Amino acid sequence: MQLLKERILKDGKVKPGHILKVDSFLNHQMDVALFNELGREFARRFAGEKITKIITVEASGIGIAAIVAQHFGNVPVVFAKKTLSKNLDGELLTAQVRSYTRGGVYTIQMERKFLSPDDNILIIDDFLAKGQALLGLLEIVAQAGAKVAGCGIVIEKGFQDGGQLIREKGVRLESLAIIESMTDDTITFAP
Amino acid sequence: MQLLKERILKDGKVKPGHILKVDSFLNHQMDVALFNELGREFARRFAGEKITKIITVEASGIGIAAIVAQHFGNVPVVFAKKTLSKNLDGELLTAQVRSYTRGGVYTIQMERKFLSPDDNILIIDDFLAKGQALLGLLEIVAQAGAKVAGCGIVIEKGFQDGGQLIREKGVRLESLAIIESMTDDTITFAP
Repeated sequence: MQLLKERILKDGKVKPGHILKVDSFLNHQMDVALFNELGREFARRFAGEKITKIITVEASGIGIAAIVAQHFGNVPVVFAKKTLSKNLDGELLTAQVRSYTRGGVYTIQMERKFLSPDDNILIIDDFLAKGQALLGLLEIVAQAGAKVAGCGIVIEKGFQDGGQLIREKGVRLESLAIIESMTDDTITFAP
Repeated sequence: MQLLKERILKDGKVKPGHILKVDSFLNHQMDVALFNELGREFARRFAGEKITKIITVEASGIGIAAIVAQHFGNVPVVFAKKTLSKNLDGELLTAQVRSYTRGGVYTIQMERKFLSPDDNILIIDDFLAKGQALLGLLEIVAQAGAKVAGCGIVIEKGFQDGGQLIREKGVRLESLAIIESMTDDTITFAP
């Protein structure tokens, strides 16, 4: 998606450890007008699917998923939670996720009542690197017996293996910008 | 806001410990069409203010704030983070927040570069109970030397003291539904 790639080149910053900082528009400060453009593009790519629900995982995915849902007829959005709270008291779907950004393993959880076997689900997230969060969300959807229409990712780090892991599972993966390589000075997108 | 109150009465569930579960439309599953109605109402109430930025705190506030921003001319939304990550590497604004829902004290943090003394900020959150998260966000805005136009809250628990704490600080507080009391069977709104 050209608009997104231009924005990454303009405002993205590469940090040591293969970190791409896009916090000025994507995952700390959020550019809602851009998010609507992302939503339009996801809707175009998944036009053949009757999406009934969008899921994501807190925190960075939530704002994107909420805006994207407007382009899928305002379907409900459910975000998996990373911490237990008194507000989670129903039957839970859970998955273990290893985080390479924060270190350690955490549990993501979603109340079972929000997913049904009739659902055709679009999974939305800001980044795909090693794919651990997406695999966790896919596991949650599988536990619910629902169908996955696909995953919509804003930025995929094509030089890490998450994309391959997801595609090898036969899951449709649509990444709006795929980074082939990056150095301190240059970001190269996959063709 | 009548629409919201009706939705709370229809789908809200009171749990022991003064917990109001509204997870089917507000803070786990999100009803984006409703969020747009909330945004319209906040825009009506803050019509006299030239809002330049909306801030909130992860996780439940993010989706609401993103949708609400569309009714304020797509101003940028910044969410305070509850955990340190490799993605936070600039100068940080921080505040300590006591959580009564999850227990314990945590630090919320926001990169200083996203707030400027020229900003006129609207703070958005899903719930106001004891007001600790809001006080933390107000502290962050004060550290940045920015102005607070006010706080826009979806549901205020009027029987807890958060609302009073915020109003006593001279901060404008607009809560779309104020709950006066609740029991297992009934939810009573303030007039």
